[in-house]
Amino acid sequence: MNVAGRPMRTIWLAGDGRTVEIIDQTRLPHELVIVRLRTLNDAARAIRDMQVRGAPLIGATAAYGMALAVGEDPSDDAIERAAATLAATRPTAVNLAWALAEMRCTLAPLHPRERFAAARKRAGAIADEDVAINRAIGEHGLALIWAAFVAKPGEAAVQILTHCNAGWLAAVDWGTALAPVYRAHNAGIPLHLWVDETRPRNQGASLTAWELGQHGVPHTVIADNAGGHLMRRGDVDLCIVGTDRTTATGDVANKIGTYLKALAAHDNGVPFYVALPSPTIDWTLDDGDKIPIERRDPREVSHIAGWRDDGERVEVRLTPTGSPAANFAFDVTPARLVTALVTERGVCPASRDGLLGLFPERRRNGAA
Amino acid sequence: MNVAGRPMRTIWLAGDGRTVEIIDQTRLPHELVIVRLRTLNDAARAIRDMQVRGAPLIGATAAYGMALAVGEDPSDDAIERAAATLAATRPTAVNLAWALAEMRCTLAPLHPRERFAAARKRAGAIADEDVAINRAIGEHGLALIWAAFVAKPGEAAVQILTHCNAGWLAAVDWGTALAPVYRAHNAGIPLHLWVDETRPRNQGASLTAWELGQHGVPHTVIADNAGGHLMRRGDVDLCIVGTDRTTATGDVANKIGTYLKALAAHDNGVPFYVALPSPTIDWTLDDGDKIPIERRDPREVSHIAGWRDDGERVEVRLTPTGSPAANFAFDVTPARLVTALVTERGVCPASRDGLLGLFPERRRNGAA
Repeated sequence: MNVAGRPMRTIWLAGDGRTVEIIDQTRLPHELVIVRLRTLNDAARAIRDMQVRGAPLIGATAAYGMALAVGEDPSDDAIERAAATLAATRPTAVNLAWALAEMRCTLAPLHPRERFAAARKRAGAIADEDVAINRAIGEHGLALIWAAFVAKPGEAAVQILTHCNAGWLAAVDWGTALAPVYRAHNAGIPLHLWVDETRPRNQGASLTAWELGQHGVPHTVIADNAGGHLMRRGDVDLCIVGTDRTTATGDVANKIGTYLKALAAHDNGVPFYVALPSPTIDWTLDDGDKIPIERRDPREVSHIAGWRDDGERVEVRLTPTGSPAANFAFDVTPARLVTALVTERGVCPASRDGLLGLFPERRRNGAA
Repeated sequence: MNVAGRPMRTIWLAGDGRTVEIIDQTRLPHELVIVRLRTLNDAARAIRDMQVRGAPLIGATAAYGMALAVGEDPSDDAIERAAATLAATRPTAVNLAWALAEMRCTLAPLHPRERFAAARKRAGAIADEDVAINRAIGEHGLALIWAAFVAKPGEAAVQILTHCNAGWLAAVDWGTALAPVYRAHNAGIPLHLWVDETRPRNQGASLTAWELGQHGVPHTVIADNAGGHLMRRGDVDLCIVGTDRTTATGDVANKIGTYLKALAAHDNGVPFYVALPSPTIDWTLDDGDKIPIERRDPREVSHIAGWRDDGERVEVRLTPTGSPAANFAFDVTPARLVTALVTERGVCPASRDGLLGLFPERRRNGAA
C-alpha cells in the first residue's frame, strides 16, 4: 500500500540483490525507519524485537532470514542452526514454523553452491504468495463493502469498525481485514474507518491509524470502549477483523476485545466479518475454547509508551505501584457471532459446512 | 474508607472549623495530596480542575463552597454570585445544581449573621446524607455478594468485575458500585476485583485500583478489552457498576464501555448489577437512547498521562499526528441487560415496575 504516495511493502530484497530491507515497526507511527538485514542474526533480532510482527510477515522474514544464513554458510549444518535460531524467536507463530520447513525442503536436495540463489527465490515466492492470498481476500471482501454501500442512501460513506492491526503492516502487503478496505477505497467507494486503539499494545492507534492515513483512507481513532455505543447509534455499517487462529467450526481467536465487538454487532444487527488466509485455519480443532490464550507481561497493562512533543519516546506508569495487572492477549469469538468468513477462496458462513464448501479437500472420508 | 490504615473521606471541614480539606484526585494514584479550600474561588477551582469529581462529591464540594462564600460575604448578592460561579464549573452535573438550590433555600430566610453557621451545618449534612445513602446501597448490595459467595464451592473468593470509578473517591465515602464491595470485604467475605482500566481517562487504573489497594481489597487491573474473555472462562461471578443517569424504565447511562460488559455478562449468564443513589433516577425519561451523550476532547484519546520512574507526570501522544480521534464519554445499557438495580431503598428489577416498587411516591395518578 502507499506510504506518502509511494507503494511499499513491509519487506523486500534490497537493491544489492543480497540483503533485505524492512520497515522498523517499533518506530511507527512517529518515524518511518527502514532497517537493512545483512545476516541471519539481523533477521532473528528483527523478529524477536518486533521490528516485524504479524504472522504472515514473520513467516516472510524467517524465509528471508534463511536466505541470509545460506549466503553466510550454505552447509547442511548451518541451515539447521539457522532454522533453530529463527524458530526460537517467537514461539507461537504458526507461519514461522511453516516458512522454515518450506525453506529447508527447498534447500536440502540442492548442492550448497546452488542454495543461495534458490533460497532468495523461494523467500521471494513466499512473500509474493502472501501478497496474492491477501489480494484475493481483498477481492472477495470488496463485494461485502460494495453491498453495504449500495444499501446506504445517497453517496454516504460506508462506516467500518476494525480492531487491532490486520493491515498490510501485519503482512507483506494488503493485509487481511484491511485488504477489502484498501480494495474498496482504491475502487472509489467512500469509506470511513473507526479504529479501535486496541489496548494494551495499541496496535490500532499506532499501526492501523498510520497505514490508513498514509494510504489516504479516512478514519478516526476511538477507545476500545466506544464501539458498542457507535453501533447502538447506527454509526457502524459493518465490522471486519483478522484472526490468529480459526477452528474447523468457525470459532475465531483474535486480539483481546474482539469478542466484545462481535457481541455488540450481533445485538445491533451489524454484520461482523472475519478475514483470514486459509493457513490460519486449524482443521484439527472443533472448539474455540480449546485454543490456548497467551498471557503476556502485565507491564503492557500497567505501563504505556508514547511520544512527547519533543519526539522522545517515553514509557509511563498508569496504575498504582501496589496494584497487580493481568494481560490476556487474545479472546475467542464463537462462530454464532460471526456473520461470515472472508478467505482467499471466497466468503462463507462461519461453520464447518461453510469452510468445507470452500476447502472441499479437507473433507474426511464421507464425513462432513 | 481506609487510606494507609486510617479512615478518610474525600472532603471534610478542617480542624479550624472554617476551611475545608479535600484529596486532590488529580495527583492520585501516585501522591496523596490534601488541599485546603479557603475561599469560594478555591472550591470552584477544585471542581473545575477535577481535583474533586464524581457527581455526589461535586455536590458536596459545591455546598461547602457556598459555606466558604458566606464566610467571606453573607449578603444576598454574594450568595447569588457564589451560586452562579459554582454552577458554571461543570455544566452537566445534576448534583451540583441540586446542592446549590439546597444551600440557597437554607440561607435565604436567615439573617446574614446566622448564615455562616447554618451554611457549614447544611453542607456537613449534605455530605453526611451522601454517606448514609451509599452506606445503605452497600447494605443492600452486600446480600448479592453474599449470595454469590455461598453459591461457590469452598471458601473461593467472589470474582467481581467493575468499570470506571464508582467508589468512595466519586462520593464522600463508600461510593455506589463499590459500597457493597467494601461492606462485603469488611464483613470478611473473600473477594477479588477485576478493575477495568477504563480508557480514555483511566479512572479504573488510577482511582479504583488505588482506593481498593488502600483499603486492602484484592484486585487486578485489566485492559477494558479483557472482561469478555474472563466471563467466557467463568472467572467473573458478578459485575457491578455505577451510573450517571437511570431512566424511569431502568436504562442506565454510564461510562463508555459499560454496555459492552453488560452484553458479555448477558451472553455468559453473569449477573450485571447497577448501583445508584435515587437522585440519579431521571423520572421524566422513558428511553435511555434519549439521554444526551457528552463528547469530550479528542486529546483524551490521542494522548495519555502517566508517571515516569522519576515521579514526573508526563503526557505522551499515542496516535499518528495526522489521525483524528473521537471521544464519547458515556454509553447507554438497556434495562434488558441489567440483572438488578441496587438503590439506598433496596434491590429491584431494572424496570418501571421495579423502580416504582421501591419509590411508590413516584407513581402517577392511577398509572403504573
